[in-house]
Amino acid sequence: MLVTVIGLGLIGGSLALELKKRLGYTVHGIDANVANAQKALALGIIDKIVDFNQIADSDVVVLAVPVNFLPDLAINVLDTVKKDTIVFDMGSTKEKLSKTVENHEKRTNFVAVHPIAGTEHSGPEAAIYHLFDDKVNIICDKELSSEVAVTKVLDIFNALNMRTIFMNSAEHDKHIAYVSHLSHISSFMLGKTVLEKEKNEKNIFDMAGSGFESTVRLAKSSPNMWTPIFIENKENILSSLNEYIDNLTAFKNLIIEEDKKGLQQTMLETNHIKEVLTGIQK
Amino acid sequence: MLVTVIGLGLIGGSLALELKKRLGYTVHGIDANVANAQKALALGIIDKIVDFNQIADSDVVVLAVPVNFLPDLAINVLDTVKKDTIVFDMGSTKEKLSKTVENHEKRTNFVAVHPIAGTEHSGPEAAIYHLFDDKVNIICDKELSSEVAVTKVLDIFNALNMRTIFMNSAEHDKHIAYVSHLSHISSFMLGKTVLEKEKNEKNIFDMAGSGFESTVRLAKSSPNMWTPIFIENKENILSSLNEYIDNLTAFKNLIIEEDKKGLQQTMLETNHIKEVLTGIQK
Repeated sequence: MLVTVIGLGLIGGSLALELKKRLGYTVHGIDANVANAQKALALGIIDKIVDFNQIADSDVVVLAVPVNFLPDLAINVLDTVKKDTIVFDMGSTKEKLSKTVENHEKRTNFVAVHPIAGTEHSGPEAAIYHLFDDKVNIICDKELSSEVAVTKVLDIFNALNMRTIFMNSAEHDKHIAYVSHLSHISSFMLGKTVLEKEKNEKNIFDMAGSGFESTVRLAKSSPNMWTPIFIENKENILSSLNEYIDNLTAFKNLIIEEDKKGLQQTMLETNHIKEVLTGIQK
Repeated sequence: MLVTVIGLGLIGGSLALELKKRLGYTVHGIDANVANAQKALALGIIDKIVDFNQIADSDVVVLAVPVNFLPDLAINVLDTVKKDTIVFDMGSTKEKLSKTVENHEKRTNFVAVHPIAGTEHSGPEAAIYHLFDDKVNIICDKELSSEVAVTKVLDIFNALNMRTIFMNSAEHDKHIAYVSHLSHISSFMLGKTVLEKEKNEKNIFDMAGSGFESTVRLAKSSPNMWTPIFIENKENILSSLNEYIDNLTAFKNLIIEEDKKGLQQTMLETNHIKEVLTGIQK
């Protein structure tokens, strides 16, 4: 099985490693950044660096580049590969990509995939073996892909011990704006606010154990990856961000009014997130 | 050495456990909630449940109740204990407490302490052995305490492998508003926003691995503990919250304008938090 992975960062690199090490596939790698490709080769994440014009014979092509490059890349790859090559992306936004490939003659070769896994680190050196294990994988618009393609993708992600769920692209982008993209913005702005105020960084370091360290973790994430996500999923993110700012403002007003009952009640209701995250439904 | 711990939740319970198990002290416990006191006894966190009128002979009295109860409790305890009993609190806000005990005749017996350690859980069953190890401890206004009292407190927290730093109460409350209290509010409101939007909680559970789980962790925290903190440290928290909302609004505008350069630059600058948290100063 010959797989070409385009984009050898945290996600593409981690998948390449799994395909090679766990599944025994031959993995070719492409990265616009030559140094990244060489690092991936040196780290044993891929078997060989190839050019775009060498992808035609791959059984599977994986697109793991920032989401702004995905639509054009998907079209170019589908134009280039052989008739039965399976192509899937791993991006965090789906609607625009989905519309772009909609009428391509090889649309059924394509599967829109989003494995919910990652860390705040980036680049091939951030690739982790077992990154995907026991996490959730999302396949979007599966009815637009061939059964063969979906089955192959499921085989791969099942082998990585992921649990795959299905939804359409529009639903995916809406939910992920709230549950993932908003978390990143809240964390980035928390980091910014604290950095602006605390000119003496020693104070931040000393007090980081008080909850800050975990809430600000995502502020270490890659701007190259996140800038295009925020633009691509603009409408959903703006809705979530407006609601978040409204909630913060309402909470601020409770503090101004010293409304103990209101503060208590708001936090108590939000504590329900405990049960949600342990999978217990009310 | 006889120590009485008043308030047997996460923090008081964890400290009681350390004093008993690691330092071999005799630990008496008091909790307004009888069930909590009994749990602490059953869990072996304390040696004995006592009444407030039995605290007089303690060598050390620890105040580990929610911050709204601290000022009155501190006065009552200082009124009651013998001449050389050392009293310290473990609260997350200090200015009001500091003003309340300022003119007490036993002021020098008192030490204002804030160990930067905790989890999102609460109650005696949340008490953890080794909770404080390798964390930072803050002593406020040490010049207002006797040397004997400060030395004793340092002995205890050094034995727990904490690194103690010193600052005054006003500074403490300002810094902790930004680095800790704001994190809790951002996390609570993130949880609220997502819970309000995602009526199907399965989606939250399935997508929580995408950054949400860590940023929302603090939204599991105890409303009984946090309501009084937000009121006590109102002014500092409102400053931090206003700046946070301003930053979120500015970031929202960058998204509306699709200002890639501005988004990229803002996130890149905030990435500096990486170096700060690993203790590397620019």
